[in-house]
Amino acid sequence: MRLTKYFIPVLKETPSEAQIVSHRYMLRAGMIKQSSAGIYSWLPLGFKVLQKIEKIVHEEQMAAGHIPMLMPTLQSADLWKESGRYEDYGEEMLRITDRHGRDMLYGPTNEELITDIFRSHVTSYKDLPLTLYHIQWKFRDEIRPRFGVMRGREFYMKDGYNFDLDYEGAMHSYNRHMISYLRSFERMGLKAIPMRADSGPIGGDDTHEFLVLAETGESEVFYDNRILDLAFGNKEVNYEQRSECAGLVENWTKPYARTKETHDETLFNMVSEEHRKESRAIEVGQIFYFGTKYSDSMNAKVQNDKGENVSVHMGSHGIGVSRLVGAIIEANHDEKGIIWPEGVTPFHCGLINLRQGDDETDLACEKIYTSLKLVGLDVLYDDRTERAGGKFATMDLLGLPWRITVGPRGLKNNVVELVSRRTGVSEEVSIDQVSKRLAVIYGLV
Amino acid sequence: MRLTKYFIPVLKETPSEAQIVSHRYMLRAGMIKQSSAGIYSWLPLGFKVLQKIEKIVHEEQMAAGHIPMLMPTLQSADLWKESGRYEDYGEEMLRITDRHGRDMLYGPTNEELITDIFRSHVTSYKDLPLTLYHIQWKFRDEIRPRFGVMRGREFYMKDGYNFDLDYEGAMHSYNRHMISYLRSFERMGLKAIPMRADSGPIGGDDTHEFLVLAETGESEVFYDNRILDLAFGNKEVNYEQRSECAGLVENWTKPYARTKETHDETLFNMVSEEHRKESRAIEVGQIFYFGTKYSDSMNAKVQNDKGENVSVHMGSHGIGVSRLVGAIIEANHDEKGIIWPEGVTPFHCGLINLRQGDDETDLACEKIYTSLKLVGLDVLYDDRTERAGGKFATMDLLGLPWRITVGPRGLKNNVVELVSRRTGVSEEVSIDQVSKRLAVIYGLV
Repeated sequence: MRLTKYFIPVLKETPSEAQIVSHRYMLRAGMIKQSSAGIYSWLPLGFKVLQKIEKIVHEEQMAAGHIPMLMPTLQSADLWKESGRYEDYGEEMLRITDRHGRDMLYGPTNEELITDIFRSHVTSYKDLPLTLYHIQWKFRDEIRPRFGVMRGREFYMKDGYNFDLDYEGAMHSYNRHMISYLRSFERMGLKAIPMRADSGPIGGDDTHEFLVLAETGESEVFYDNRILDLAFGNKEVNYEQRSECAGLVENWTKPYARTKETHDETLFNMVSEEHRKESRAIEVGQIFYFGTKYSDSMNAKVQNDKGENVSVHMGSHGIGVSRLVGAIIEANHDEKGIIWPEGVTPFHCGLINLRQGDDETDLACEKIYTSLKLVGLDVLYDDRTERAGGKFATMDLLGLPWRITVGPRGLKNNVVELVSRRTGVSEEVSIDQVSKRLAVIYGLV
Repeated sequence: MRLTKYFIPVLKETPSEAQIVSHRYMLRAGMIKQSSAGIYSWLPLGFKVLQKIEKIVHEEQMAAGHIPMLMPTLQSADLWKESGRYEDYGEEMLRITDRHGRDMLYGPTNEELITDIFRSHVTSYKDLPLTLYHIQWKFRDEIRPRFGVMRGREFYMKDGYNFDLDYEGAMHSYNRHMISYLRSFERMGLKAIPMRADSGPIGGDDTHEFLVLAETGESEVFYDNRILDLAFGNKEVNYEQRSECAGLVENWTKPYARTKETHDETLFNMVSEEHRKESRAIEVGQIFYFGTKYSDSMNAKVQNDKGENVSVHMGSHGIGVSRLVGAIIEANHDEKGIIWPEGVTPFHCGLINLRQGDDETDLACEKIYTSLKLVGLDVLYDDRTERAGGKFATMDLLGLPWRITVGPRGLKNNVVELVSRRTGVSEEVSIDQVSKRLAVIYGLV
């Protein structure tokens, strides 16, 4: 993409309303624009990141055997009256009356709607286990929306729901979700720690939150820092193997890691002092097992192999897709701007022409631009007639992991500069090699 | 995907509320479930088709140089008061009050919001031309929602907005939209006819609707049937060439084609009788040029090359993404069920095991299933222990373009049956060749 044909309205000034770094950088980098309190338009660059995160979530959910679908944003109030949550939910639920005077609401979550779909179509244990999920816009009417997309009112969330015949089946679903979530966050370049948590208004017995360490986080967390050494890497997971999944979850939940709400000082003090850490953190996901809470109240039963009607065991599992954009920036930035992890970067690399209008430099840039596209790399080419300093500052703010700089001096030796945004390390690479070099880095060859 | 691990809740009975064939088949094939009047959940199979259509629209819009972004579903009423449409829009606009008593609305369209984004960031003619689009859920509170997803209340729409310095620039944007729309519909297996139309509440001077011929359509149309012979095929379009685009649009708009609202009997009678046709049709898209209507009222101006502030010329361009799912079925079905065009089919092919539980047949199916996946084909494997008749009926209802049938009789000769859903033509193919054969059909090799 050529910058002159794209739309990245970079702001020179730091917007005064933004209190945290992700909000400031998302506004300054032209990723979002507030349309009203806690509601944002995702400008082209922000939308690209949102799509990358959505794609990772879809891929990992489907790999775990979970089935994608899509529920609407607006729901009838009737189902919520049936479950008893219509009154409970309070003012955060946006209540709406349609032209016929019917009570509706903008879904803040989907336990009722999915349970209704389930009970309408599934009657036998033979159709279990079943896990359905969707990624859809939600609305919670926060009294004080703040921190940009981190605590907005309209937000994009993946929520999945498992239906199992018994507790053991539901625990396997719980484990699959934990693993698929950890893998998703890892692909996004995040260290997310699963922490035993409180269940809040969803209700439930077992629940873990996933927290990303960041100074600006709203949560206070206590953990054994050896959990930060765990990683999946390229390891495949067989999601059908209950014991394999249980073993992985055991590894990830053995080290002490709790939020303030469930923190246990005695247990925490048993962690050796060098590993005992306190920090602020951002919640980016949560999984719940809540047994038969909704299946009882909404009569979602199946016939088991003895011919008895039994309530199904359920859980719900959420990832804050739009919030993650902010969380990733909180965990990946410096004083110059964003530093995108390679898994979610809006463009694989930036290309800077140091002398726009100079025939030889323009030609070299065009050649590199074309060769990058040919190997499947998405490149942002700064083809403006702007001074070099301005181009560097913009590219640093946007935070693409790799920058190729093309100028007359290097071209004399047939080389360009390749710089890592994260390490700042710079190297000279021949014009012919630079696209291959990046293709290797991104695993495209 | 194995049917026993998927979720396609096929209905045996035809739902009484469904008046048209697409609505009946979408319910029967387990593609959608109504959650309240005019609001649907997209079950896994329906969601897959919706995603395919969305992907085609994205690809063709980006090919035309249009930039994807995403605006929120909820909007502040303020912008609509500024444009003067808040009162005009009537009861179809879903008006909402948030917890602080602020007037909001569920966006039925986005001219105001995009104009606000534009005027906040663009000030110079040097940043033009610019076309931004998004695909987002919209809401129109239809008094009588009907025909399933064809006239729902919550619907998925692509809407794009062009900003140009002058009339000529805006006309080129108009032409790009017409071409990219026609190409999109063609990839979806539809013959969509551009017809001069009325502008309605959007306002505007030039506007075309895109109509798909179908007996159940709500529109009455009059056309020269030679327009049905036009097609793009694999022809590339250079969207930067104004004259090339204008020439293509000229070809597509020369034959007489109008809706009832703009029909001109005298002009129509000049078409030779053999080509003069009247029909019912479904509207699946519309493009508008409306000049400075919104840029004047909302003060969206840029400085031109003489230093003067001038209102930008705008247009808006919509495709009914969720409606298209219904329209495609209206145009592609028989008495047994849906017949998906290859460009939008939820699975490339179906695989039927005629003797589930028989070792040799099961093994052959597994082998074919794996080889189809290896060549990149998405297959739905009916691995249920159901009688053959039931499996055929389900597969015909779901409408996958190709069906592979595996049974003991064929296996004796090492062959399976490959059947086209559209033509019914059946052929014997060796087990080893069937995935290659389909890969060729789908252009994967």
